[in-house]
Amino acid sequence: MAQFLTEPEWPQSLTCLKNIDALLRCTICFDYIDIAMMIQQCSHNYCSLCIRKFLSLKTQCPLCNLTVTESDLRNNRVLDDLVKSFRSVRQQFLQIDSESPPKTPQA
Amino acid sequence: MAQFLTEPEWPQSLTCLKNIDALLRCTICFDYIDIAMMIQQCSHNYCSLCIRKFLSLKTQCPLCNLTVTESDLRNNRVLDDLVKSFRSVRQQFLQIDSESPPKTPQA
Ligand SMILES: [Zn+2]
Ligand SMILES: [Zn+2]
Ligand SMILES: [Zn+2]
Ligand SMILES: [Zn+2]
Repeated sequence: MAQFLTEPEWPQSLTCLKNIDALLRCTICFDYIDIAMMIQQCSHNYCSLCIRKFLSLKTQCPLCNLTVTESDLRNNRVLDDLVKSFRSVRQQFLQIDSESPPKTPQA
Repeated sequence: MAQFLTEPEWPQSLTCLKNIDALLRCTICFDYIDIAMMIQQCSHNYCSLCIRKFLSLKTQCPLCNLTVTESDLRNNRVLDDLVKSFRSVRQQFLQIDSESPPKTPQA
């Protein structure tokens, strides 16, 4: 959960990108999905490591509680490509925003 | 292919969003993916209708030529959500850009 404290907030002008940001995150670790694995029955996605660790303790999808095992996992490579592209978009937009004059007075 | 002629171009300031745009399009119809279906063996995605029509003629993935049938298709729902969010982002950015002063003289 530590990343919530250190990650920069989306500036207000870019809140429309927040939805995409949320869709590309893993609901186990809250970071961007790393090596996306989709559960074939319910279509939910997690980091490969996160979901494998989870399934070794409990054979359920963490989001919908469907009974699943490791053999139900499928690579979802377009998500890996989307995470990569989105990270660079994010970098560029946050950069642009930090270069524009601040709207609130600085201490 | 007609949409290439009528769709607005990404303005230069937003070319970084072009990669995401490309990843969310179907390589059969070139439009944004509509009801995303992933081929489980190769992880390639297409519109449900596009890939079903294609497989009825040829039992191959159009991108990698792997032998596949309809039973290998899996819903990829996060892509549907991403397309929805991205369309609204796109709308907002193109709107903002059309409101900013033009960089080239108008006829
Ligand atoms: Zn994770
Ligand atoms: Zn699930
Ligand atoms: Zn299509
Ligand atoms: Zn393929």
